[in-house]
Amino acid sequence: MSSNKASIDELMELVIYFRDQRDWQQFHNSKDLALSLSLESSELLENFQWKTSEEAESEKKDEIQDELADVVIYALMLAHELDIDLSDAVTSKLKKNNEKYPVAKSKGNNRKYKEF
Amino acid sequence: MSSNKASIDELMELVIYFRDQRDWQQFHNSKDLALSLSLESSELLENFQWKTSEEAESEKKDEIQDELADVVIYALMLAHELDIDLSDAVTSKLKKNNEKYPVAKSKGNNRKYKEF
Amino acid sequence: MSSNKASIDELMELVIYFRDQRDWQQFHNSKDLALSLSLESSELLENFQWKTSEEAESEKKDEIQDELADVVIYALMLAHELDIDLSDAVTSKLKKNNEKYPVAKSKGNNRKYKEF
Amino acid sequence: MSSNKASIDELMELVIYFRDQRDWQQFHNSKDLALSLSLESSELLENFQWKTSEEAESEKKDEIQDELADVVIYALMLAHELDIDLSDAVTSKLKKNNEKYPVAKSKGNNRKYKEF
Repeated sequence: MSSNKASIDELMELVIYFRDQRDWQQFHNSKDLALSLSLESSELLENFQWKTSEEAESEKKDEIQDELADVVIYALMLAHELDIDLSDAVTSKLKKNNEKYPVAKSKGNNRKYKEF
Repeated sequence: MSSNKASIDELMELVIYFRDQRDWQQFHNSKDLALSLSLESSELLENFQWKTSEEAESEKKDEIQDELADVVIYALMLAHELDIDLSDAVTSKLKKNNEKYPVAKSKGNNRKYKEF
Repeated sequence: MSSNKASIDELMELVIYFRDQRDWQQFHNSKDLALSLSLESSELLENFQWKTSEEAESEKKDEIQDELADVVIYALMLAHELDIDLSDAVTSKLKKNNEKYPVAKSKGNNRKYKEF
Repeated sequence: MSSNKASIDELMELVIYFRDQRDWQQFHNSKDLALSLSLESSELLENFQWKTSEEAESEKKDEIQDELADVVIYALMLAHELDIDLSDAVTSKLKKNNEKYPVAKSKGNNRKYKEF
């Protein structure tokens, strides 16, 4: 379980086990989970406030890793609550993006990129 | 690749392949990736604006799935940029949360939960 | 200065005086100010996490007031940085919204409202 | 009404008049207003995505002004809903910040500033 070789399923299991040990599923609902995901992503971003990328990376690496983990944990909880298969969701969204930003037109194209 | 059995590594590969086909890594930096992750999580949350969880789930399920995918895609890109192992990050954060919210004290406890 | 009778100009003056006493304008730039405004609005929203409006209002009234003040303080700083007249901006935006949501069609209309 | 000489009270009146013409107060509650304020601040921030401050200011000035106006409109609606006097809230928060960041210690101090 200690590497990126872990599957989404395995991570999901850990997260749901953590939740169920505490009987916290009773407080969960999709709106508050989406709200919490947004709050965690702000706490992640806070590590970059008034800093360059380089400063944040050297001064706040551990905090960034922890906050990114919280984002993923809430993403997993929300996917579980809504019965969304995250792997399917990601591959299907990449296909849509692939059509929206065809390689031929988007390659190294800052303008297209900015409209992503 | 079409199920939660996919590993983080496999999803990462897809995301980075998509990025590299377009030569977009040149525009990436950790601050803008964290900012983008926060923006995507807001777009996800927007589907719940002025709605109950139930209304959002029945009226906006596809949009929610797509926005959640975007959140995960940016989480993967940021992890790649910062060389963070997401599986390690999640398991290590769950361990910290485990100490912060011991099962004995947290079980079904709304107050503790709210302070999560 | 102790009531809503205060003008935007008067509040702006207080905020900029606070900033300049500390020589902080040197760290300001519009991107980090917009980022900070977004972070403060998340801290405001955090008071409603896992709560109904009524619970948040009775348990977190003071925190909500303080965070809302921080949002306004950053809005004033950003307006100052970009030389935006907030009163003009608000009246002009209300005019646009007025055309987008004509009273005849929008009155008590939940659907239109949700698309606001 | 067309300058920063406008008082908070006058802006509030405009915003509430706009709302009441459409009978929209029935949909308002403090949690969704705080959530909407957060969403609008993200839309504001989106104008800075993948850009420097200078690029955003020259390419997106009008959008930034409109989104900043939306932030202020929701701040006014939330203050109205919770019966918060925004001028009082701002002056009282500046006093707290004044104690937290005394001029003598904070002047031109990047470190203190970053912890603001």
